[in-house]
Amino acid sequence: MTIPLSRPGTAERTGAGDTGAEDTGAGDTGAGDTGAGDRDATALLAALRRALPDGALSTGSDATGPYATDRSGSHPGGVPLAVVHATRTEHVQTALRHAHALRVPVVPRGAGTGLSGGASAGTGSVVLDLSRMNRILELRPEEQIAVVEPGVITAELDRAAGEFGLRYAPDPASAAISTVGGNIATNAGGLRCAKYGVTRDAVLGLDAVLADGTLIRTGRRTVKGVTGYDLTGLLTGSEGTLGVITAATVRLRPVPAETVTVAAYFATFAEGAEAVSALTAARVEPAMAELLDGPVLGAVDDAQGTDLRSRGGAVLLLQCDGRGAAAEADAAVRQLGGRAASVEVTGDPAEADRLLAARRLALPSLERLGRPLIEDIAVPRSQLAAAVRAIDAAADRHGVRIFTFAHAADGNLHPILVLDPSLPAVPDAAWQAAGDIFAAALRLGGTLTGEHGVGTLKRRWLGDELGPDQHALQRRLKTAFDPHGILNPGKAL
Amino acid sequence: MTIPLSRPGTAERTGAGDTGAEDTGAGDTGAGDTGAGDRDATALLAALRRALPDGALSTGSDATGPYATDRSGSHPGGVPLAVVHATRTEHVQTALRHAHALRVPVVPRGAGTGLSGGASAGTGSVVLDLSRMNRILELRPEEQIAVVEPGVITAELDRAAGEFGLRYAPDPASAAISTVGGNIATNAGGLRCAKYGVTRDAVLGLDAVLADGTLIRTGRRTVKGVTGYDLTGLLTGSEGTLGVITAATVRLRPVPAETVTVAAYFATFAEGAEAVSALTAARVEPAMAELLDGPVLGAVDDAQGTDLRSRGGAVLLLQCDGRGAAAEADAAVRQLGGRAASVEVTGDPAEADRLLAARRLALPSLERLGRPLIEDIAVPRSQLAAAVRAIDAAADRHGVRIFTFAHAADGNLHPILVLDPSLPAVPDAAWQAAGDIFAAALRLGGTLTGEHGVGTLKRRWLGDELGPDQHALQRRLKTAFDPHGILNPGKAL
Repeated sequence: MTIPLSRPGTAERTGAGDTGAEDTGAGDTGAGDTGAGDRDATALLAALRRALPDGALSTGSDATGPYATDRSGSHPGGVPLAVVHATRTEHVQTALRHAHALRVPVVPRGAGTGLSGGASAGTGSVVLDLSRMNRILELRPEEQIAVVEPGVITAELDRAAGEFGLRYAPDPASAAISTVGGNIATNAGGLRCAKYGVTRDAVLGLDAVLADGTLIRTGRRTVKGVTGYDLTGLLTGSEGTLGVITAATVRLRPVPAETVTVAAYFATFAEGAEAVSALTAARVEPAMAELLDGPVLGAVDDAQGTDLRSRGGAVLLLQCDGRGAAAEADAAVRQLGGRAASVEVTGDPAEADRLLAARRLALPSLERLGRPLIEDIAVPRSQLAAAVRAIDAAADRHGVRIFTFAHAADGNLHPILVLDPSLPAVPDAAWQAAGDIFAAALRLGGTLTGEHGVGTLKRRWLGDELGPDQHALQRRLKTAFDPHGILNPGKAL
Repeated sequence: MTIPLSRPGTAERTGAGDTGAEDTGAGDTGAGDTGAGDRDATALLAALRRALPDGALSTGSDATGPYATDRSGSHPGGVPLAVVHATRTEHVQTALRHAHALRVPVVPRGAGTGLSGGASAGTGSVVLDLSRMNRILELRPEEQIAVVEPGVITAELDRAAGEFGLRYAPDPASAAISTVGGNIATNAGGLRCAKYGVTRDAVLGLDAVLADGTLIRTGRRTVKGVTGYDLTGLLTGSEGTLGVITAATVRLRPVPAETVTVAAYFATFAEGAEAVSALTAARVEPAMAELLDGPVLGAVDDAQGTDLRSRGGAVLLLQCDGRGAAAEADAAVRQLGGRAASVEVTGDPAEADRLLAARRLALPSLERLGRPLIEDIAVPRSQLAAAVRAIDAAADRHGVRIFTFAHAADGNLHPILVLDPSLPAVPDAAWQAAGDIFAAALRLGGTLTGEHGVGTLKRRWLGDELGPDQHALQRRLKTAFDPHGILNPGKAL
């Protein structure tokens, strides 16, 4: 899943120092074309060696090379100057204070599981590795909140909450390997968003270190509160460009009393999409609604020896939960009945696992076919079928293979381009197909990225979605947080 | 409910022009101590008369006087120079473009139902009245979204959605008289927040006019999306200080299939608060959980001839909704059984209305006793009883009468100071009691304002909650949006 995919011209276009200057208007950053200049780099390393404890600083390309990219495989060019392995907030403050003074670009990083290049780090940059700040600081079942360091693995927080009958609702597919801090930086989504919302909906407050090393504490421990501007929401999804999160107060929710799982097969993806619209019209509110297309089912069959494709050209996997789960599932099945080729329903966890296997095995099965390039558009819910038609047309037009699954209740589609692994870089045809898909998403009233973030890979299309005036305002906000443009330059904006 | 309450020294301290300069560091605004200077005022009025259609501009103190205050009764001193009655986005842009050029303060206003002075407008300011931009532009049941102008009355949007079996979930107590735009400006809460969240959770995208007249379109029509910084969330709750909302894309939700209402009486408020904690521990998730103290019940009895106080010293009113409503209510009743003096449960709407009468009649009943000054703290849910102890202590210490009800599942309390209506201004003792209550909220890990906003009335305590570094950052953000500090100066920050 981590095969490097470099994009034509990526090394030139997304070099951190380079685009930092270009993006934030901070032409005076001193970061120059290749991050820190030699003199600044030497000065910074000397200062960090003095200020940080033993083992907190790695230098040399053998040590820093693995931090140059994330799961997108996007390479900015070169390797980072150094990696700071923070174990305390003070280390983050120290690193930023010195980097700010010397105008050296800093790339915050969790587990490096991002899919948009948001944590890629090039020549002359310093990576701020937060994966060792991985303590659950508080877990308060009576308040249904937890306070965690950014490097806590998302699934571990969920597991810890589970001991009290609670859970951390955001569940990106990467939950077993990604961090809460990284999820907050990208405002990650997941499968349960249909009912429980995205990461932002679970974050009540943040400790964040600003570019100059100043620590602020945003938001609160209460469910509600409107004092001051919503900096918690602004930092969430800002991809490390506004501040470095060193702690998060997050909301926990009760584990549902019951969960019922439904699998319905359809002749075509379009029919599955229509069924999702029918559920919406019938005011059914599933906690999960995953729709997989025929090519995905075929790939799973090929990899696993199953026979899913013979059951239909698409499958819709629903979960309903809570004290009304059975009634909700009944209402769903009533809608699906006349439309689906077959419908299975179960309240049994083992049986549910079996029904959900196609979704769980989809990506591993695609990885056997080549290098997956995972896209992430979202469209208004009624445009799901239109979006898949546009995706199929883009695949035909550019001669690339695209497999699609969707968080259907959110209108969030993941078209997965599967590329020839023997190619050294993503071929132009694939980028053209991706560009067509982004254009279609915007044309249908949707967005470039539902939950993965802009990173470096989608910046080319960002202006199309934001418009020039909003884009300019967003750059002014960036400057208000980070006047020298040292924080993750060249990302997100 | 609209009796003016002026605060000692308010006229001096919250004059819009004055604190605008003080707050935004925009000392060069030209707004001066009394808003627009005479020459700028004349120039602005001439320009607006030329640019706006007939009937869109009101001048003269008879016409502008009613726009000087909101339901807080806070008076900044003097009356506005003019009121622009916008009916189109272009009018908002025109008014701001000219005001920006001449550095004249502008106060956006919906229905003027705010409780914190956020829409109060003093000498030399221009009020931007958005109440006539009151069209529902789109209502898309298949997407479960609506696009509305800011002046749409909140309850009217809910009613329009109801024709399609949907609802607009945010339900501030003022829903029948307040506007969607005003609710967004304050990030209003309400009774259903326990399950459905606050206004921010219902807003997907905004059209907003910046201080210089530039129109931006933030967010999206999709449920999910992470392109760019979350300006939708940042504008929500910014109290008209960052931009003027001219349209909002909001999320609608299905009207619940079932609703079950529970009323439980307790000997004391503390016992009611403990019962709410027990519900949380039992992972019951009500859609509404209102807790009223004994003095409120007594006031309702006095006004309505009821006999509620004899049933207990506090009442907890719950609603559970959705397809699991009955099961959720059953789980609630199991927890309340051993604790409450009496418990009633009903699925019948008329009977539910009867049970909820105490909540509905609370404020009108208190208004018969004097002038209500409604406070709005929020604390961690487990601190509800401690908060009420602190409120009672403040009442005793300063010799004021305080009645309290709470959105208990959110930890959001409304202590209502009832004042002698013959006094010309809020007595010092009442402000001292309020100050003690705010201090207690912060000490308990809570916030100054759960859902009403900071406005002018809570600015004194703002720095205590935000801390100096976050406060400074928030001012920089304000400047990035509004470099001359013309938008609602002296409010929120």
